[in-house]
Amino acid sequence: MAGSVLPSWNEGPAKQAIVDFVAGAITPGDDFVEVADRIAAFDNDGTLWSEQPLPPQFDFVFRKWGEEVKANPALAQVEPYKGLLAHDMSFLAGVATQDPEAISTLFAAFSRSWAGTTPEVFDAEVRVWLQTVKQPKFGVPYIDLIYKPMLELIEYLTANKFRVFVCSGGGRDFMRAFAEEAWGINKENVIGTAAEYTYVDGGIVRGEQVLGGLDIGPGKPEHIFAQTGRLPIIAGGNADVDIEMLESARFAVIIQHDDDTREFEYTAGAERAFTRAAELGWTVVSVKNDWNVVYGKGLA
Amino acid sequence: MAGSVLPSWNEGPAKQAIVDFVAGAITPGDDFVEVADRIAAFDNDGTLWSEQPLPPQFDFVFRKWGEEVKANPALAQVEPYKGLLAHDMSFLAGVATQDPEAISTLFAAFSRSWAGTTPEVFDAEVRVWLQTVKQPKFGVPYIDLIYKPMLELIEYLTANKFRVFVCSGGGRDFMRAFAEEAWGINKENVIGTAAEYTYVDGGIVRGEQVLGGLDIGPGKPEHIFAQTGRLPIIAGGNADVDIEMLESARFAVIIQHDDDTREFEYTAGAERAFTRAAELGWTVVSVKNDWNVVYGKGLA
Repeated sequence: MAGSVLPSWNEGPAKQAIVDFVAGAITPGDDFVEVADRIAAFDNDGTLWSEQPLPPQFDFVFRKWGEEVKANPALAQVEPYKGLLAHDMSFLAGVATQDPEAISTLFAAFSRSWAGTTPEVFDAEVRVWLQTVKQPKFGVPYIDLIYKPMLELIEYLTANKFRVFVCSGGGRDFMRAFAEEAWGINKENVIGTAAEYTYVDGGIVRGEQVLGGLDIGPGKPEHIFAQTGRLPIIAGGNADVDIEMLESARFAVIIQHDDDTREFEYTAGAERAFTRAAELGWTVVSVKNDWNVVYGKGLA
Repeated sequence: MAGSVLPSWNEGPAKQAIVDFVAGAITPGDDFVEVADRIAAFDNDGTLWSEQPLPPQFDFVFRKWGEEVKANPALAQVEPYKGLLAHDMSFLAGVATQDPEAISTLFAAFSRSWAGTTPEVFDAEVRVWLQTVKQPKFGVPYIDLIYKPMLELIEYLTANKFRVFVCSGGGRDFMRAFAEEAWGINKENVIGTAAEYTYVDGGIVRGEQVLGGLDIGPGKPEHIFAQTGRLPIIAGGNADVDIEMLESARFAVIIQHDDDTREFEYTAGAERAFTRAAELGWTVVSVKNDWNVVYGKGLA
């Protein structure tokens, strides 16, 4: 049975645990999960696509800020533009590991950059970025760096009547711009950090404030409950900011980035998460050992 | 064709307009709507079930407050408990017509009543209320006063690949307690006014504050966009608090409560909405003339 599903996954304990979990959830018995309760939730950065050297959304945002500084050079003296232009490595390291303070500073500036615009304008900018910008290590668009094994997992869960949500600290509307095309997941199944919007003159206009808090740490199960009325049955993540979401699920998988050849090798920002994984028996997925293909479009 | 769908709807301009709208949306041509964009949004009180003499949730909440006053008689001197015990008719009339100020006062007290509880406790209270309390005019549980024609409309839209959301000024979590059983709509497709929740010690606990504002007026399209990333293609409502949601849709239906025998006859709280309906060509659904059955369980 396990051989016929999840073809990009090597046979081994991780794949077996996932297949066993799904079999239990759909088979009458002690582990059966009612169809209505079958909610799956996955982090995005580092769980569905590569997040090194920086989560891709920051590439998108930093380019926007570059344009803003070009148009208004005085901004170069103000944070976060200043630290960015100076390549302040401690600041960037905080971003890469999703340090809450760094993320918070960024989101405040991020919100300002698009305040007053419509969703259509924002979506179009994201699409241009997706089509034109290349990731530095692999020289391909970021969207080609989505993990094929995770797309198969989403498909496998969906086929077994799970409703799959993506729940990321990143921007909800950023992800929604490509969710349907890239993941086959409807926009309404994408949960993330989000700006407020107001309805003005028949349309939706973005405000300056983040609404409902950052979607990291305890914010993840809080956002999942707000969006769905439930906590997840299965969750997947890779970092400390995913701990509460993973704890809130019956079955948790955590991605271990240990393949510097085909992807990246790092543990920063995930130290506590792997301690919890060992304590709670989460299923550890090694990129190196558990995946025979890494990316969706033939890179690996 | 129109005869074989929506059997509780009489043949006539309202039913024809709905059938024509759906045919246009699913047929290649000028009015075609991509499957991904097929979002439908319906108000609840007065659109999916009877809202007279008061929206049913207020019966639920007022009983809770009755218990609170019994346990703590000093509350009887404090608003909103005081006005309620005194049967202050202007206050209750404001509630019945969803006056924003009355709704706001109520929600603040409402939030306090369940602060610190879990969703499971709240859901269980709603279920007991649904099973034990009877609506005064008809002497049946409120859940029996769901409009059968609207359930057929939800089913018809779903069969044509619309994703149907309920978007009410009422409490999101109140509606979610019965959405799946009563409407066949997943909890995650229910949008409403909602309390904040925090994730504490592995579980979700309700806070005191309303998160994201009241889901009335412009709040309706704002909440729909936040939940789904889109505005609705078709929307249904019945009151002034639905105007912005109805305006935001390509096709709008508005329920006219003109049947005092089988349901209720009233126009309060919907005066502006019917002016907009005439100006914008919304499809007016007369309970008296367009529905051959009103309720789901054989009352009419």
